[in-house]
Amino acid sequence: MTIELIIIGDEILNGRTLDANLAWMAPWLFKKGLNLNHVTMVRDEPTQMIEAMTTAWKRSNIIITSGGIGPTLDDLTKAIMAEFAGKTLGEDANARAIVEKNYKRIDREWTPQTNAYHLIPKDFIATDNPVGLAPGLVYINEGKALMAAPGVPKEFAVMVEDVFFPLLESKGFNLIGDQGQVVIRTFGVPEEKIFGELCPTLWKDLERFGKVSSLPHITGVDILVTFAGEANKTEYQKEIQSIVEATSLVPHVWQWGTLSLEEYIVQKAKKLGKTICFAESCTGGLVASKITDISGSSEVFLGSVVSYANSAKEDFLHVSDRDIKKFGAVSEQVAQAMAQGAREKFKADYCVSFSGIAGPSGGTVEKPVGLVCQGFSSATKLVSRSLTFKGDRQKLKERFAMSGLFWLLKELEDY
Amino acid sequence: MTIELIIIGDEILNGRTLDANLAWMAPWLFKKGLNLNHVTMVRDEPTQMIEAMTTAWKRSNIIITSGGIGPTLDDLTKAIMAEFAGKTLGEDANARAIVEKNYKRIDREWTPQTNAYHLIPKDFIATDNPVGLAPGLVYINEGKALMAAPGVPKEFAVMVEDVFFPLLESKGFNLIGDQGQVVIRTFGVPEEKIFGELCPTLWKDLERFGKVSSLPHITGVDILVTFAGEANKTEYQKEIQSIVEATSLVPHVWQWGTLSLEEYIVQKAKKLGKTICFAESCTGGLVASKITDISGSSEVFLGSVVSYANSAKEDFLHVSDRDIKKFGAVSEQVAQAMAQGAREKFKADYCVSFSGIAGPSGGTVEKPVGLVCQGFSSATKLVSRSLTFKGDRQKLKERFAMSGLFWLLKELEDY
Repeated sequence: MTIELIIIGDEILNGRTLDANLAWMAPWLFKKGLNLNHVTMVRDEPTQMIEAMTTAWKRSNIIITSGGIGPTLDDLTKAIMAEFAGKTLGEDANARAIVEKNYKRIDREWTPQTNAYHLIPKDFIATDNPVGLAPGLVYINEGKALMAAPGVPKEFAVMVEDVFFPLLESKGFNLIGDQGQVVIRTFGVPEEKIFGELCPTLWKDLERFGKVSSLPHITGVDILVTFAGEANKTEYQKEIQSIVEATSLVPHVWQWGTLSLEEYIVQKAKKLGKTICFAESCTGGLVASKITDISGSSEVFLGSVVSYANSAKEDFLHVSDRDIKKFGAVSEQVAQAMAQGAREKFKADYCVSFSGIAGPSGGTVEKPVGLVCQGFSSATKLVSRSLTFKGDRQKLKERFAMSGLFWLLKELEDY
Repeated sequence: MTIELIIIGDEILNGRTLDANLAWMAPWLFKKGLNLNHVTMVRDEPTQMIEAMTTAWKRSNIIITSGGIGPTLDDLTKAIMAEFAGKTLGEDANARAIVEKNYKRIDREWTPQTNAYHLIPKDFIATDNPVGLAPGLVYINEGKALMAAPGVPKEFAVMVEDVFFPLLESKGFNLIGDQGQVVIRTFGVPEEKIFGELCPTLWKDLERFGKVSSLPHITGVDILVTFAGEANKTEYQKEIQSIVEATSLVPHVWQWGTLSLEEYIVQKAKKLGKTICFAESCTGGLVASKITDISGSSEVFLGSVVSYANSAKEDFLHVSDRDIKKFGAVSEQVAQAMAQGAREKFKADYCVSFSGIAGPSGGTVEKPVGLVCQGFSSATKLVSRSLTFKGDRQKLKERFAMSGLFWLLKELEDY
């Protein structure tokens, strides 16, 4: 079963909007063991849209389009699909009922003057839109399906998952995937060193199990082995682990799995029954926001003080004015004081602090943009370190945050 | 000049990696007045890669690929490009010199045993990689260019901007775009209501100036008018403003321009010479992180207390234990107390606070998931409100944060 996504909209190609539908659909399909084979992004231009549909129809079984089914004049998808399939638009009783129901849900009345949602191409199916107003459109022919979903990410995801896929199944499409994957997440060693110096035969060794990919991230490299048969996973993982354990990669592996670092930390802290907090300056709340993205983080995360101004470091964290003047706000001394001050006041078991220079301005020769001082405090430990990274302001915030979270993980593991 | 991007890599289509190269390149091209016409994403599969290059070569002048030029065995781009162009791989003195230089930069030695970076297809140009190791590849023929850049986002952006585009210009490609745009950013009114009830002729009226698009966001709708001739912008914007001012859309327009809400707030606060701070619970630091993404925010932003635990609300913000017990942590009373406590302690002019239920668990009938209580405190005002949103945990954090920032903007504007 080959699945393809066509994302329609000038706003994506002009960079006004960041794609969110591929970002949702790709991992969703993958978890189901299904493959997304192609993605095409085109402008709101009839010739581009027709070309994309024609090409996709030749090579794929299921084609989902995102965008262009709203009420405004640049919403062309319905008309173009009608043209593609050689059908005329006409009133559809089912579409009309869906639209009336959707408007009732938001306490508004729909009439044929509101918009043309009740007109759909002949032989197409209008579908529910559980969270939006415009119906989805489905065209099934020659054992293939072309389906139009809204571009609004929330509507897109609900329509694909709760409406399109059940409909396809009811029409006899086989949507049961069977794919397993072992993921080795490493930290602190470049891709090339892994497959060169450290483990020159690893790639070939892993290829015995399936397709190997190497995935460098902002914080490390993931090695993925993908194979047919989810049922093989336990056995393969055991074998792969014993291969890796014979290499020098071991100290760099931080997880066998796909959890994010934040999620992994929250789980670890829960297991240990330990609480955490942060004192942030240059990361500006990003560390806390990452941790609170994880459901259930409130069991272990007590809070963070974003002490951006120096006065806030003094007033909230009892960092001494003297230390700030003597060593500077970005210094290991102040980072330590922040970590200790926050940990004591939050009454937490662990605290990591961040003071650095995210730029683009504010750097000096001794303290350049990219420098971060981090402090760590627990009941038995008060230490600090300085690291330097490269990148723009947002990348630096990200690297400052992730490196500090890796430190926290290490301390939790050494506990 | 038609420009096309081919993103290569299983990790994108499997959802293991979020695209960052399109996210960077689309707005970058748009700002230059150039159009990105197509994006295709394919797997690390030779047949898909060849097909994508062949199709792109037919319809576009400049084709940039992202990914697949690293050292591992799934890095196929170079070989596939050679096949596409009908060239053989061979040693290239220029490529070798670039690679040796790049390795020297990171204090490592490169030899032909390290990798095959010195082998490139005949008649291709190897280019610098100012931040990575693998050289870029450029093939120019028939007045068209096919160029391979690394997939790592930082390397990709630097190579395209600092290496590929100057090279193309030196080879006679015309890369001077001339495109203007007027952007109307609205808040709090759905797309359909704008072009239906409020301004039924607006779309047609705006089409006199150029291409109109409507772009619904998580927080509002942007209306974009794009036209040839950047020089027309001032005049067109004036005319468009007078058209909009005659409609009922006026109270919903919060900006004529493309600044993010965070950036707009920081600018506004700077202009007024006012300082801001936050007290966050359910948003978990996201509000502060958004503001600190903006360079120069330290002039107006003093900090935020992420008081996730109730004890932190008491210890850092002097919220009374009695109020928390009586009204609950998620209540307008507590939100007010948080805003006041934080503003006084940060000695800020304005504070917005956030206490809510981001879910997925923790909701009740009276206080469901999606409820947020927000407080606002200034020297002359202490108020609160409750809002309800839909979405998953991360969307809710985003909506809680953005709605609070809009409130802050309104208060800054009413000042």
